[in-house]
Amino acid sequence: MLPAATHDPSRRRLRAGIVGGGRGAFIGSVHRLAAELDGQALVVAGAMSSDPANARASAAAWFLERSYDSYEEMARSEAADANGIDFVIVATPNHLHFPVARAFLTEDIHVVCDKPLAASLADGEELAHLVSGGTALFALTHNYTGYPLVREARELVRAGRLGEIRKVTVEYAQDWLMEPLEARGNKQAAWRTDPHRAGPGGSVGDIGTHAANLLEFVTGRRIESVCADLTAFVAGRRLDDDASMLIRLEGGAKGTLVCSQIACGEENQLSLRVYGSKAGLEWRQQEPNTLILKPAGKPWELLRTGHAYLGAAARAASRTPPGHPEGYLEAFANLYRSFIADVRRVAQGQAPARDYPGIEEGLRGLRFVTQAVASSRAGSVWMRI
Amino acid sequence: MLPAATHDPSRRRLRAGIVGGGRGAFIGSVHRLAAELDGQALVVAGAMSSDPANARASAAAWFLERSYDSYEEMARSEAADANGIDFVIVATPNHLHFPVARAFLTEDIHVVCDKPLAASLADGEELAHLVSGGTALFALTHNYTGYPLVREARELVRAGRLGEIRKVTVEYAQDWLMEPLEARGNKQAAWRTDPHRAGPGGSVGDIGTHAANLLEFVTGRRIESVCADLTAFVAGRRLDDDASMLIRLEGGAKGTLVCSQIACGEENQLSLRVYGSKAGLEWRQQEPNTLILKPAGKPWELLRTGHAYLGAAARAASRTPPGHPEGYLEAFANLYRSFIADVRRVAQGQAPARDYPGIEEGLRGLRFVTQAVASSRAGSVWMRI
Amino acid sequence: MLPAATHDPSRRRLRAGIVGGGRGAFIGSVHRLAAELDGQALVVAGAMSSDPANARASAAAWFLERSYDSYEEMARSEAADANGIDFVIVATPNHLHFPVARAFLTEDIHVVCDKPLAASLADGEELAHLVSGGTALFALTHNYTGYPLVREARELVRAGRLGEIRKVTVEYAQDWLMEPLEARGNKQAAWRTDPHRAGPGGSVGDIGTHAANLLEFVTGRRIESVCADLTAFVAGRRLDDDASMLIRLEGGAKGTLVCSQIACGEENQLSLRVYGSKAGLEWRQQEPNTLILKPAGKPWELLRTGHAYLGAAARAASRTPPGHPEGYLEAFANLYRSFIADVRRVAQGQAPARDYPGIEEGLRGLRFVTQAVASSRAGSVWMRI
Amino acid sequence: MLPAATHDPSRRRLRAGIVGGGRGAFIGSVHRLAAELDGQALVVAGAMSSDPANARASAAAWFLERSYDSYEEMARSEAADANGIDFVIVATPNHLHFPVARAFLTEDIHVVCDKPLAASLADGEELAHLVSGGTALFALTHNYTGYPLVREARELVRAGRLGEIRKVTVEYAQDWLMEPLEARGNKQAAWRTDPHRAGPGGSVGDIGTHAANLLEFVTGRRIESVCADLTAFVAGRRLDDDASMLIRLEGGAKGTLVCSQIACGEENQLSLRVYGSKAGLEWRQQEPNTLILKPAGKPWELLRTGHAYLGAAARAASRTPPGHPEGYLEAFANLYRSFIADVRRVAQGQAPARDYPGIEEGLRGLRFVTQAVASSRAGSVWMRI
Repeated sequence: MLPAATHDPSRRRLRAGIVGGGRGAFIGSVHRLAAELDGQALVVAGAMSSDPANARASAAAWFLERSYDSYEEMARSEAADANGIDFVIVATPNHLHFPVARAFLTEDIHVVCDKPLAASLADGEELAHLVSGGTALFALTHNYTGYPLVREARELVRAGRLGEIRKVTVEYAQDWLMEPLEARGNKQAAWRTDPHRAGPGGSVGDIGTHAANLLEFVTGRRIESVCADLTAFVAGRRLDDDASMLIRLEGGAKGTLVCSQIACGEENQLSLRVYGSKAGLEWRQQEPNTLILKPAGKPWELLRTGHAYLGAAARAASRTPPGHPEGYLEAFANLYRSFIADVRRVAQGQAPARDYPGIEEGLRGLRFVTQAVASSRAGSVWMRI
Repeated sequence: MLPAATHDPSRRRLRAGIVGGGRGAFIGSVHRLAAELDGQALVVAGAMSSDPANARASAAAWFLERSYDSYEEMARSEAADANGIDFVIVATPNHLHFPVARAFLTEDIHVVCDKPLAASLADGEELAHLVSGGTALFALTHNYTGYPLVREARELVRAGRLGEIRKVTVEYAQDWLMEPLEARGNKQAAWRTDPHRAGPGGSVGDIGTHAANLLEFVTGRRIESVCADLTAFVAGRRLDDDASMLIRLEGGAKGTLVCSQIACGEENQLSLRVYGSKAGLEWRQQEPNTLILKPAGKPWELLRTGHAYLGAAARAASRTPPGHPEGYLEAFANLYRSFIADVRRVAQGQAPARDYPGIEEGLRGLRFVTQAVASSRAGSVWMRI
Repeated sequence: MLPAATHDPSRRRLRAGIVGGGRGAFIGSVHRLAAELDGQALVVAGAMSSDPANARASAAAWFLERSYDSYEEMARSEAADANGIDFVIVATPNHLHFPVARAFLTEDIHVVCDKPLAASLADGEELAHLVSGGTALFALTHNYTGYPLVREARELVRAGRLGEIRKVTVEYAQDWLMEPLEARGNKQAAWRTDPHRAGPGGSVGDIGTHAANLLEFVTGRRIESVCADLTAFVAGRRLDDDASMLIRLEGGAKGTLVCSQIACGEENQLSLRVYGSKAGLEWRQQEPNTLILKPAGKPWELLRTGHAYLGAAARAASRTPPGHPEGYLEAFANLYRSFIADVRRVAQGQAPARDYPGIEEGLRGLRFVTQAVASSRAGSVWMRI
Repeated sequence: MLPAATHDPSRRRLRAGIVGGGRGAFIGSVHRLAAELDGQALVVAGAMSSDPANARASAAAWFLERSYDSYEEMARSEAADANGIDFVIVATPNHLHFPVARAFLTEDIHVVCDKPLAASLADGEELAHLVSGGTALFALTHNYTGYPLVREARELVRAGRLGEIRKVTVEYAQDWLMEPLEARGNKQAAWRTDPHRAGPGGSVGDIGTHAANLLEFVTGRRIESVCADLTAFVAGRRLDDDASMLIRLEGGAKGTLVCSQIACGEENQLSLRVYGSKAGLEWRQQEPNTLILKPAGKPWELLRTGHAYLGAAARAASRTPPGHPEGYLEAFANLYRSFIADVRRVAQGQAPARDYPGIEEGLRGLRFVTQAVASSRAGSVWMRI
């Protein structure tokens, strides 16, 4: 027999809590599943809804050990409990990211926060201040960076395989908001199209930030300036549901960034192409296990998840042999895997590796949204980020 | 606060045990992950290796509560423990499926067993006898039937959308055994190419059974007879690493079944096409979230995982919105989801639904292997299954 | 026996002449092949190069009956010959389109001219004046509109299948100018990167005009304004080799237009997506026999060349049964097919159908180039077309 | 001015005749177009139908100079004419290939004949005797070997890039005969399902021979034996409309050959995969400009038509730059290109290159059909070819 559960985090699954994610919220389940996927953590406590009955029912459905009616109570109580949670997951609408994260950071509890970082740049900056001044870890779930071949793409760029980066194209196209769902009782649509809860960007904040983050992650270059044309195609909508942008990157690359939630027939068509002086590359989220490398004057190569010919980062991010497709949940779980490893490191007095998106990426995302909105309002003028 | 963990299985995650799956074995991790994916079960006990040190180290790496040196001890001990496991996972080489499963079935512990059912038809039939005479549930992980669109394909056939089934093509092609790995210390290759541990079929048993099962699952027709040509292309190999077969299905459909472990460049290319008098359909495991429907005289339709236009079975088998790719692990977990629901039903005195592959599919697989081998030995003559 | 060749153009293949297209020029062969493909015309005369020796050798290689040293002589001589050419093909560098076309139009000889219409808007407008004031027919080879499924796409939009058009994405990406070929003796590159011969646009004129034309052809909406960012990525190049543009269409649709000749690894990746309020569509030139229709809430449909379910325009533009791929040359020939039918109509005193690109499309292309260049020079400001 | 048309075949387009191919016959137009595509030949004479009125109308529609009511008259008359045809195209139903070809071969006129060679092996052998005893050239239009990347595939095999060939899969699937069209007045279906006009094989003769020829062309190995299961799925049909076969090649490779004309939703899905000890390759006729190379342990490579990295044979078979898709007609024309070059060679007293399918391939095809039918009738036993 093994010893019973222990306080030593290196000898047990970590204990996680969750705020938000009550029944009906898609992303809550994703966080639980991703956090637990590798058998390194269990969600044991939650304040899953602002509605107490829903909070309790949601917690019971997940077999949580502890359910709270408010996140403030949860933060205090868990911090005081020797067997309290090791980290908290923030899966609320955007405007609550800040106060919830603050409550737990204040108690020195590590935080995994959904994106975007906050509903305003001011809130985000205050959060950044808190994080930099404290000891708790902070991760932001720009989950698309968790795909093995996204990491391979970054390695290829870093290794110089593409040469000088010249041209980029990144896009995130959906259609789920092509009808005025917010006027038909859809809660997910309601808060995402409400400036008070979502922030100044609609599609730009919800998915444009993913596109921008993916581009910067892979190229290792920051978006320097944007020239944007934002639109609300659905009548009466208060935030953009579509955006077309010209972008310029540090170092001279140029291109376009498109995000749309009214692109009829598209599911989650996040795609990236990068063209350099030696090779191009292409990746599509809906077929995530293939990365196309396009070397000058040679046949395209199809790099596939799981192969020994991939770099270390991609190999480490994969759980199955080649040809057994991995998807969205596994990519999401890769962020948790890195974060959990950091929580263990910190518990053992080691320095964290911080190889997952964090506060800095969150701030960049908020500035991206702010400047894209400003550019569009000014008639599509170049704005620096 | 919620009440603490309870004996009532409807109020807690189920407790699972595992036999086999020690470090270095790919499929063990898959079983753990799939069993736990929906937060409905935790693996808490194991006899993970016949080597005691490896067994303990593997159990510790997974934070198991109880590690055993033998599966016999595990079966007895868990059965005697009021907080013992609710079900056991058998993830050993083929020849051990029978004795391990028997040990737990004898203790009335539910069993999830990897495929093929056993290393011989005789063992399989004895196992079937045990299961039919007992009360414990038995699931066989023909995991490819867990994909949402495989289930959609079956519904389309059942609903008559394809009309009379005429022609079928099913194939499972890999290349991982294209070199004599069994002579180079690869344990996975060693037992799979050893008739004593794998049974009479090489590629036919390891992956041909998956292809046959997938075909029968989708069409709802049994393979009636086979005319097979088996080959060991790698010098010195004792079992087939490649097979080509003509097949005939109940009801008059005909076609081919191909399996290969020497198809250079293929990963896990399991693919199925079914042609009827009204429509055809095509599905490929490596792009599992697309099902192609080919209605006569009309454009092909691309059915995609997660959409509201799919049938109930496919919708129930999906965890993310359309466009967030799901893969192998989620499909595998769908078998566990159904099995776990059955364990809960039985615990509450309800009748099990048995909507996952079981003993019957296992026996059909063993007969398929036996007759394919016999056909090939006789010079490719038709053999009835 | 049939009667010998006759003057009656309805009883014989038409006689065509060509200016330009001498040996080494890719597009000349394409014009000959496309003009002759349906057995309705033969190229019999030419002034194929400004270099007389090359002109004669080129003509001999094509078995032409008459070779000229200058296009002026050719125009005069053919016009005076009762068995002279029925139409001329202009396949020279851009700056010669105007004088050559003028020479033949002045002689009332029908003209098929490569695109863009001219090297300057002023030349183009004078050409338009000539055409509108004369009787000769004029076709401009925006050849991508000749693909059957491009025509189907236009019919789908016209029939309202997409609903209100909201979002568009069009791109033409190549890589053949990613190195300074113009400095290495490549003639094709030399004139295309020379403002005096190519006009004010580099990639914008050479391929951006194709993208713009394709978009307007399919949507039936004009590009109203552009906000462009043009770049010469190759050091020393005098014209743009890459452009990113925001665009707005009549009626409120928005989107992006990208053209690039430095997109490493791309061949001729001309692609178009149009998203409406009811459906989206997607077409890619490199797989031209598939048109993807994306109806809201339903599976994507793959429309394929040659099927009876297509509209009349697409069916008429196809020469083989479904599944026998048709390509670039056949699409190019479809413009000639329509033009030749018009030549026959006019010869018989009927009104021409003019169902091919002509002067108007040529002028729009020149204005597009002019305004894209102006927008970029002004720092990416919106310019009306 | 150039000299007028001359008797010297090196100074003029060759003159071709055609037998069959009258209005309504798909393949006649393909032959004309393919023969003329490169500007090296013109079809000037024909006996296009056994119905004289149709023959004349068809000839007039093509602007032929000479129309005949019978092929016998045509052969005699053209042979006697100093300006008679240089070669004849035989585009009749199968049972007429032999007498028509014989008529022209007897007159020493070169022949291009559609496949299969004849409606019986005996006829084919007599034809072979005639060809070997005469001086006229003979080409058989196994047109799929004309695709540039099929030629590349052959070069890759020849160069040893695949190593030892182990496993092959070839298939030709259509659906155009899934209904009893022969009973509904469809002439194309009527003769193809009539043993007297088509020969002993239905789908096996019509498309199975293409599949077999493609496989042997690419691998350079002959099919040594077949074990076949032929079926007429459509009630009342006298010839097979579907076949599944096990095959064995010289040198030890094995695999399957499938042909079907009832595969609902398939157009002309001719596909080939070859797996060797070093690499695999895959080609699909419906996307003919991509050849997938699958080297062991490395990423797949997508070889594309038109690139400089291809071998000489593939490069010579292409007419456009990469990314401008070429298709069925261009591939068909490549056979004519080689044949016409041989006609010119012979006219100049040179030895022909014979780099196109001929009598030998025709005989092999007839033997393949004969033995596949025999194998199936005997209950799927191995038959040597």
